[in-house]
Parts: sequence; structure tokens; C-alpha cells
Amino acid sequence: MADGLTLDSVRAAAARLYGVAHRTTVLTSAALDQHCGGHVVLKAEVFQRGGSFKFRGAYNKLSQLDAAQRTRGVVAYSSGNHGAAVALAARLLGIGAVVVVPANGPAVKLAAIEGYGAELRRYDPARESRAEVAAQIAAERSMTIVRPFDDYEVMAGQGTVGLELAARVPDLGLVLVPVGGGGLAAGVATAVKGLIPTATVIGVEPTSAADTSLSVRAGHRVSIAEPDTIADGLRARQPGELTFPITSRLLADVVTVSEEEIVEAMRFCFSRLKIVVEPSGAVALAALLVGLVPAATQTGVVLSGGNVDPADFAALMKA
Amino acid sequence: MADGLTLDSVRAAAARLYGVAHRTTVLTSAALDQHCGGHVVLKAEVFQRGGSFKFRGAYNKLSQLDAAQRTRGVVAYSSGNHGAAVALAARLLGIGAVVVVPANGPAVKLAAIEGYGAELRRYDPARESRAEVAAQIAAERSMTIVRPFDDYEVMAGQGTVGLELAARVPDLGLVLVPVGGGGLAAGVATAVKGLIPTATVIGVEPTSAADTSLSVRAGHRVSIAEPDTIADGLRARQPGELTFPITSRLLADVVTVSEEEIVEAMRFCFSRLKIVVEPSGAVALAALLVGLVPAATQTGVVLSGGNVDPADFAALMKA
Repeated sequence: MADGLTLDSVRAAAARLYGVAHRTTVLTSAALDQHCGGHVVLKAEVFQRGGSFKFRGAYNKLSQLDAAQRTRGVVAYSSGNHGAAVALAARLLGIGAVVVVPANGPAVKLAAIEGYGAELRRYDPARESRAEVAAQIAAERSMTIVRPFDDYEVMAGQGTVGLELAARVPDLGLVLVPVGGGGLAAGVATAVKGLIPTATVIGVEPTSAADTSLSVRAGHRVSIAEPDTIADGLRARQPGELTFPITSRLLADVVTVSEEEIVEAMRFCFSRLKIVVEPSGAVALAALLVGLVPAATQTGVVLSGGNVDPADFAALMKA
Repeated sequence: MADGLTLDSVRAAAARLYGVAHRTTVLTSAALDQHCGGHVVLKAEVFQRGGSFKFRGAYNKLSQLDAAQRTRGVVAYSSGNHGAAVALAARLLGIGAVVVVPANGPAVKLAAIEGYGAELRRYDPARESRAEVAAQIAAERSMTIVRPFDDYEVMAGQGTVGLELAARVPDLGLVLVPVGGGGLAAGVATAVKGLIPTATVIGVEPTSAADTSLSVRAGHRVSIAEPDTIADGLRARQPGELTFPITSRLLADVVTVSEEEIVEAMRFCFSRLKIVVEPSGAVALAALLVGLVPAATQTGVVLSGGNVDPADFAALMKA
């Protein structure tokens, strides 16, 4: 596997994902273009297998394991999209998978992971560290740990989102991408800047999970308190060790949006686009809708996932 | 304009709509295929301009008005998708439009119609008949009435949904389509049966708005009491005078689904497909999901619209 993230490693990931991951559609909206004063292309990863971009990175990683590693299996820690993505990729490749999940995690999401055939290992978030639980399992069973973002092959897989966007809109001036641990942002920025050096790539995160924004300003990785945000996929407390050097070099800026702005963007997607976008998936659009970042003549926005429980969605729409 | 509905009149409508209406995407779901035991292709009219199939019929009708008719304008009665569709088509063609709406209609929908530039004429549903109000306006101002379904050109426009579905899946064995007044069902059945005579087309309506189902069984048009259903686009009290001879001849059956089954289908679309489907738009899928109609090897399902207020949707998901 490659030691680093390059346009070529993203292209290699695209070749592995060909015919396996969906080449997701892009959506446009005349109302959105008028509102923003530019043409906006929305990359709808809500339609990706497993409901988010995470499948790309997980499959790219798992498909490169050798026969011995495949036999021993993989372990991931995540109650959310990464857990489901690893479970799905493992099933497709015939690899055993353990997913470490909080005992109090949402039943719907845990059932989805189990539905893909993965073994659940519940841990108590108050007493245990999920990374340590995963490390212990990996050591005991000689399993390969699949990190959610701090892995060049995971990043390369996520970067195929940017590759497809740049292929679809060759004159992209601006790309907005959600930032959690930074895997998607690093991958997309590497692909887009590699193909279109003049394009500006900007990261977006919730104001209450501004670890990357703060780190970029500080010039080094800053750790924040446990974030309190509805964007459950973006609750990283600090940027990744491997992602941060890439995002801090390639992103022109990292901006933040409020919880209310995230909900408004979800509502726009529901009412105007007729698609379901989860809170984490809506932050990039939120930044554009509120005018935090002015649109370019051609702007790409990553809607990174659509896994939100109908009841949770209902509560947000009513509030 | 044609006196009757034929495959050729649907084809002519398609030519008029080319480059104006969206040729909407089709969606598929491995989970749905497995559940149904056949391949299911969902025609996503939620992505149509104005958020429902209604734009097709309205534009096909309005685009054929002569210069004098265009100058005098059009009038429609509907607080829902037909009203918005006529308003949008009129704006695109530079035609004045009056839309007769209930004074107590949902503010969001009335605002949408007004947003497309149509003149609203509010009436009191307790005291007035909307058809009579529209007829009076048409007489006073020499305007053309655009009926929501009982018009061959409106039906031909809606039929382009079937034309696109049959072109996309040439070996369709079964098509499920929502039935309100019968315009969509008549158009789709004419197109599908015209292109694929072996295909079975089945209509679906809410149990509490079973006017077409009862009429088909009676052999003549039956009128029912004011329907009480969340499927606000399917509240016709009796089949159309022009639509019924067509639907009763071409539909193999008309089946009914409960309110709960409609909500379940909406939830499936939200959770699994990540798209927003309004109650009326979900009835055909509901019939398939509950096994009321067994899937064919290739089944087409029309998801006819996605205009549902987020707060109303929230209330349905929580119930």
C-alpha cells in the first residue's frame, strides 16, 4: 500500500472501486444557483452504498489486504457510517469484521452494522476507550484495524468523490467539503487540486466541533473538548495525524457553521431537492446557503451522507 | 388538440416536453429487489420540475394554446401540485395564470404557486365550489380552464412518465401507478401498453379514496364521500369522465393501501433510498412493499411526487 496520498493513489482507488461503489449522481437546482449567484453542483453521496462516502475508503482499504490478512479479518470502531461501511465492504470481500460500538449507540445503526454481517463488540464509553478496545481485539485475533480516516488508503478511497466531481465539472472554481477527522477533505482536495490546480477547496465543520479550523489557525493539531453537535459524523476531537498535514496544505480555509444553519441546509435538501441529507452531510451546503463562502462560477458541494433516523429527522424539522 | 389519448399523442407530448421537463432518473435498491423477489425500477418524479409529474401535463396543455388563448391566460383549481405545475408552465410560456385555491389551504403550497407568478383566487370551501369559481373566472376573463386530469392533452403529458419508463426497461412485466382522478394512470397505461402490450399496469389508491377501484368493479363511475386520507393528491371523489373509460380498459386492476402502509412506504424511501416522497407519491410502492401485488421479473413503480412539508412529514414519522 502507498505511503502517502497522491492523485495517482486516488486514481488507483477509483480503479478498485469501479463497478463496486456507485458513481453517485450530481444534483443541481435553479433556485440554489439563483440564491448563490453561480452554478452549484451537488455530489450526492447520500446515494452511495451504505448511505455515505465511507464505503469508498473502507472498500479501497480492505480490497488490498493479502490472503492472510483477509483470513484473520478486520476490526473497526464506529457506531456510524464508517462501521457500516467496513461491515459492508467486508461482506462483499468475504472478510470477517468486528465493529466496536458504544453499548448505548442508536439501535437502528447497530442493527444496520449487524445486518451487513459484522460482529458487534459493545463497549462502555464511560469506562473504556474504543480505540483501546479495538487494539486489544486486533492483538488477540491478529486482525487488521481499519481506521476511519488516518490511513492513506482510506483517504484515497474518499478522494474518488473529488475525482468524479472534477471529471463531471472540469472548470470547477470552488469545492466545499465537510471535515471531521479529515479523511474525506484530504482525499477530495488531493484529487481536485491534482486535476484542477486553480480550484479552491474549502473545508466546513460545525462551530462546536471546530478542531480542524482551530488547528489550521494554530499551525498545529489542536485538541478540543467533546463536541456537542447534531453532526454525529464530525465529532472528531482533533484532526488526524496523517490527514492534518494534507488538509492544512491543500485547503484554502476551514469555516464553521452553526447547528441552526445545518438544520436549515437539511431542510433545503428535503424541500427543494427532495433528498435526505444527514447533519454531517449538510455542513458544506450550509456554508454556501448562508453566504459564508461566496459561490464561484462553478461550485462543487459534497453532500456526504444521508443516514439519519426518520424520528431524529422529524425532531429536527419540528424544533 | 387530439380528441382522445393514443401512444402517438403521448409521443407528441414528449417532443413538446423535450428539454423543458426533466427526464427523471430511475432508482433501484438491492434491498427492495430482495424483499420483492424481482427487479424493481422506481421512476422518481419527485425530481421533476415543481416536484411532481404534474408539470408534464400542464406544460403539454399550455404549450398548445394559440396566440389569442395565451394572451387571455389560463385558470386552474388546485391548492396542490397541479396548481403549482400550471403556474410554472404558464410562467415559462409567458402566459398569465389564475389558480383557484381554498382560503384555508397550506400557506407553504399557496406561497409556492404565488412564487411562480400566478394570481391566487381564494375561495371558501364551505360555501363555494372551486370548479364553479374557476368557470366563472374563465367566463368573465375568457380564460382557458386547465383541468387537473380530465383533458386528453394533460393525460398525454403525464403519459410521458410511462414512455420514459418503458424506454428505460424494455422488458417491463408490471407497472404500478398511483390513481387520483386517473390522468397519470391513463397516460402511463396508454404509453406502456402501447409499447409493451404484454405488460400489466395496475393502479393504486388509498383505501379511503377508493373511487376508481369501486368504479372499476361496478363497471361505471361511482362517487364516494369526501375522502379522508393523507394522500392529498388522490382525494378525487370520482374518476374522471374522460379518464375512466381509459383506465377501466387498460388497468388490469386497481388495488388499495391503508394510511399506515403509505407512511411505511414513505419511511422506506427516506431511510433506504434517501429520497422524499409525498403520501400520494408513495401509494404504488406501498402496494409492492406489503405484497399486495407480486413483483414481476422487471417491475416499474411511479413515485409521482415529493411535495410534503417538512413539519407534516415529521408528524407522520413520529406517529
